[in-house]
This record gives sequence, structure tokens and C-alpha cells, in this order.
Amino acid sequence: MTIDARQFRSALGSFATGITIVTTRDPAGADVGLTVNSFNSVSLDPPMVLWSLAKKSRSRQAFIDAGQFAVHILSLDQSELATRFASPLPDRFAGLSLERSEGGMPLLRDCAARFQCKIISRYEGGDHDIFVGEVSAFENFGRPALVLQAGRYAVAVEKPERPLLNYGVASGDAGRNSITYLLARAYYQVQIAIRPELARRNLSETDYHMLTIVALNGPCTAAQVTDLIAVSGHQVSLADMQRLAHRQLLSLSEKEGADPIVQLTEAGRESMVRIAAMAKAIEEDAVTDLGYTEVDIFKQMLRKIIRRTRLPWQKDPLVSN
Amino acid sequence: MTIDARQFRSALGSFATGITIVTTRDPAGADVGLTVNSFNSVSLDPPMVLWSLAKKSRSRQAFIDAGQFAVHILSLDQSELATRFASPLPDRFAGLSLERSEGGMPLLRDCAARFQCKIISRYEGGDHDIFVGEVSAFENFGRPALVLQAGRYAVAVEKPERPLLNYGVASGDAGRNSITYLLARAYYQVQIAIRPELARRNLSETDYHMLTIVALNGPCTAAQVTDLIAVSGHQVSLADMQRLAHRQLLSLSEKEGADPIVQLTEAGRESMVRIAAMAKAIEEDAVTDLGYTEVDIFKQMLRKIIRRTRLPWQKDPLVSN
Repeated sequence: MTIDARQFRSALGSFATGITIVTTRDPAGADVGLTVNSFNSVSLDPPMVLWSLAKKSRSRQAFIDAGQFAVHILSLDQSELATRFASPLPDRFAGLSLERSEGGMPLLRDCAARFQCKIISRYEGGDHDIFVGEVSAFENFGRPALVLQAGRYAVAVEKPERPLLNYGVASGDAGRNSITYLLARAYYQVQIAIRPELARRNLSETDYHMLTIVALNGPCTAAQVTDLIAVSGHQVSLADMQRLAHRQLLSLSEKEGADPIVQLTEAGRESMVRIAAMAKAIEEDAVTDLGYTEVDIFKQMLRKIIRRTRLPWQKDPLVSN
Repeated sequence: MTIDARQFRSALGSFATGITIVTTRDPAGADVGLTVNSFNSVSLDPPMVLWSLAKKSRSRQAFIDAGQFAVHILSLDQSELATRFASPLPDRFAGLSLERSEGGMPLLRDCAARFQCKIISRYEGGDHDIFVGEVSAFENFGRPALVLQAGRYAVAVEKPERPLLNYGVASGDAGRNSITYLLARAYYQVQIAIRPELARRNLSETDYHMLTIVALNGPCTAAQVTDLIAVSGHQVSLADMQRLAHRQLLSLSEKEGADPIVQLTEAGRESMVRIAAMAKAIEEDAVTDLGYTEVDIFKQMLRKIIRRTRLPWQKDPLVSN
């Protein structure tokens, strides 16, 4: 039986796992720990968990000697810690703020959950030992957890339901499933709640676009404002900017013959800050049904689309990195 | 030591896992299988995997007798199979199209990966047995895999990088991270590529909105068209619809005094089908950097926002279910 180790590992990689750091203390009192994804539950009564450790691991004897360990299920923000505890460093614990179990095991903070265990069996498992521990104490911190799939850090999100409807039966249903329709509708609907505020301030949607562009980009030339707005399909001229300048919301430098520099006045900035505060509350409500992690994922997806579809001359730090 | 079983299970649940179905055949030749998430790799050389089975499981003796099993890492589309193989059914295999391993084990199709194993150890693990199998053959089908986290079916997606920039240092960066800005920019940029086609057909953006609404909703009254377009901040009157009727793209029923019924003409439908085909290609390019699964997740997130932000009178089957 010849099995290609790389292909075997790759096939196993489709099985997602969380990521843990397992720690103990060696007889000399030094803290020992390593990143482990072969963790799993075994028994509820008595509460038991297991994990596997390569027989050639330098940490092996410390676990055998200590007879106990702590397992930390890493939270989404701890991918750097996972990488650190998988790297050949002289002291992986350097600079970390630790707690201690009753038995003296090093306990890491900010994880999703952690378990203190007494080793009750060590089983033979090929090139690994299987450590089975009985859980003596555990804490569940409720943080979203890090996931490993196909060798990469990932995050688990709700599985999309599919198909939602029999798309294609009615052309309208297919159209309503298109990215453009969904983007347009989400955008327009989120905007609905801001419109009364714009109306109250006597600002048209195009006025608001102009002010937003100047607020986001800082001082621009009038030609730049026109170009940036054109992306949205709106057309503005110098006269539109002058109208907002008359209302003391924008200021335009008036050098003869030159493209004027457009910037927000103090009153313009104050208006935009107030509208932005309202927009923020509206946005937070709009994403109520998305989890905290999902909002970040959603924004990352939008950035990927923006990066892909932007025009060659469009540049900004947020989407280009 | 008193450990609350429900809290223990909940703490373990933050550790994500894939989902497998493990199968074997009992001495009478009946197929046996169950859903298992306590699967994990043990050894690369020799290739070994393990999983745990409750001692009180009705399937236990079949695995012991057979001395072999097959493990299927379930794909994203197999959540119903996972539920089925965790349910008390007389025949969980009913109606499934099976393959057979050399040893006669039932092999399920359409999974992400599968492994044929010989049991080489059965270890004591509290209320469970730990089955360790040596892998004699495996297949990797490369399908996206199902994930279990916190007791729910999930899917693993690329972990979002955070923070992308030092938001808040410059107000522009914070603004560029807002949902509204990202939605607007993604939508407008995806639309850029369709504009030359609209210009070629002498259609304004508002014309295109009108035609899209009638195409998606089927025949509407003129008042409905006006209301639906108003969501996007565009204002249209009966005269705008009559203009498109003069161009043979829309037809308006002309009953005296009544709100006319607006629908696409054959020419209007043909125009929209051609524009839709072009829009589809543009969309597919726009989401190039999102994986297949990510596109579904992205759409689901947009639907959640649409459902949350829509006006009370807005209804349609796609977002309401």
C-alpha cells in the first residue's frame, strides 16, 4: 500500500478543524506549548478530550512527565498566536500575559474556550501518540473561534441556503438573484433612511455625493470631483460646486485660469459629520442580522469587488492593499 | 468534580469540525452508517485516522465485527445527508446510489473526500470507544466541505484581515470602511461596464431602472412603477413611461381614468434579455476574486440587509423567505 503523504494530507485538509494551543510545564518549571488541530471531544461522562502529538516532538516528554495539560480553543483574533506556537522559537511564551491553573499549567488569555485536563491514557497511533485527558475544569468565553481548512486560517459562517427558489422558472427570480440587483437594492434601501435628513438640509443626492467625495478625499480640483462623481453616473459641473460654495458648504480657490481647488468649509465639515453619525446608526441597524464576524467578511467581499472593477485611475489605500 | 454536561458540550462546540459519515457492513451484510464529527488525523506514516463512537451506539458491534470502515468528509451540499445519518431511521441508505470498497463497505458519492480504513486499535475513552484506522485507500474530490460549529452547519471562508488600516486616524479612512460607501462604490463600479451598452441603446439610467422594474415584476400599474423606482431615489412620471412606449419598449393600457398597466413589449423584452446577458458576464468578472461559495454567502448577506431595510410595502419572494 503506497500512499502519497502530501496527497493524504491534502485530502485530510478538507476536514475543517478549530485550532488549539496545548500547554504544560516541564519538570524544570519551563512552560511548554504547541499549536494542535488534532483536538477533539471523546466522552461526556466522564468529560474527556483527546489530541495527537508527533512522537518526535521535542515537547513530548514534558507532557508525559507533567501528566496534565491545558487546551485553548483559539479565538478568531489569535491566528498570530497559532503561528507563533507552530514556529521554532526559543520561548514561545515570551511577552504573553499568562494565568496559571491550580496544577501550575500556563493558561493563555483571550481564547474562545479552555480546558484543564489530567492525562489518563496515552495510546499508540503510528508516528503520533494519542493523549486522552479527563477534563477537570473548563471555561467558555464565547468568542468567535478560528478555523483551519485546507491549511489556511478561516472563519465559519452560516451555510447559505441554496437554491433559495427555483431560479430560472420565472426570469424575474433569476434577475432578483443577480449581484447587481442585490447590490443596488441593498444600497438604495440603506440610503432611504438618510434621505429625510438630506431633504431637511436641502441637499440633493448629487450634492451629497459631491460633499462626500470632498470629505473622503480631502481637497480636490474641480475636475477631480467631476471625474470621481462620474463613476456613480452622476454629472456635476463647476456651477454645481459654486452653488454649494454660495451656501458656505464648500470653498473654491479662485486662481485665474486654473482648475479651482475644492474643499469643505467648517460648516460643510460639520454638516457631513452630523450626516455621517446618522448614517452610521442606519448602517448598524441594516446589518443587524449579520454577526460581528460576518460584517467584516461582507466588507472584505465588497472590497474584492471594488478592487476588481475599479477604473485604472481610481486609487485609494483602503482597497489597494 | 462536577461538570455540567450541557455547558461542557457548548464549550467544545466552539471548536469547529468538518462532518463525516462513517460506514461499515454488519455480518448479515446490512449497511451501517452514522454521522460523526469526532474524526481526525493521527499519523502520516503509516496513514492513520481516528474517530469516537458512543459505547451505547447500536452500530458499535457492526464496526467491531467488520474490522473496517469508510469515512466520508461531507461536502457543502450534503447537510441533509448529515442530518439523515444522525436520525433514527430504519434504513439510512434508502434510495442512495452507493459504490463499494474492495472490502464491501458502502461508499457514498458526492462527498469532499473519503477514506477506506482497517481498524487497528479500539481504545477506551470513557463513554466512547476510540476507533483508530489505518488508511488503505483514499480519494480527494476537491469539493468545498461542510463545517459544524456551535452545533450548526456552517461553511469556512477566508478569515478577514482586520484592521486593514488604522481607521479613525484620517476621517476619510473611516468613511471608506462604511457599509454605505463600500456598497455604493461596488454597485456603481459594477454598473460602469454596462453604461456604454445603455448609451448605445439611447437609454438613460432612469429608463433602465424603469425597464428593469417591469422586467422583474411583470405587469405593474404606472403608480407601482413610480413607487418602486422611488426606492432608488429616482423620480419618474407617466410621461417617462409614455416616452418608452413611443419607442415600442413598453406598452401602456389606456383605459380612461384608470391607472394604466405597464408591461414590456416584445422588443422591450428582447432589449432587456440582451442587456441582462451582458450584465451577467460583467458580474461574473466582478466576483472573480470571490470563491464559488463566497458568492453565495455574499448574496445571502445582501439579502439579509435587504430584508432588514425594506419598506413595509415592499414584498417579493426572494428576500422574504
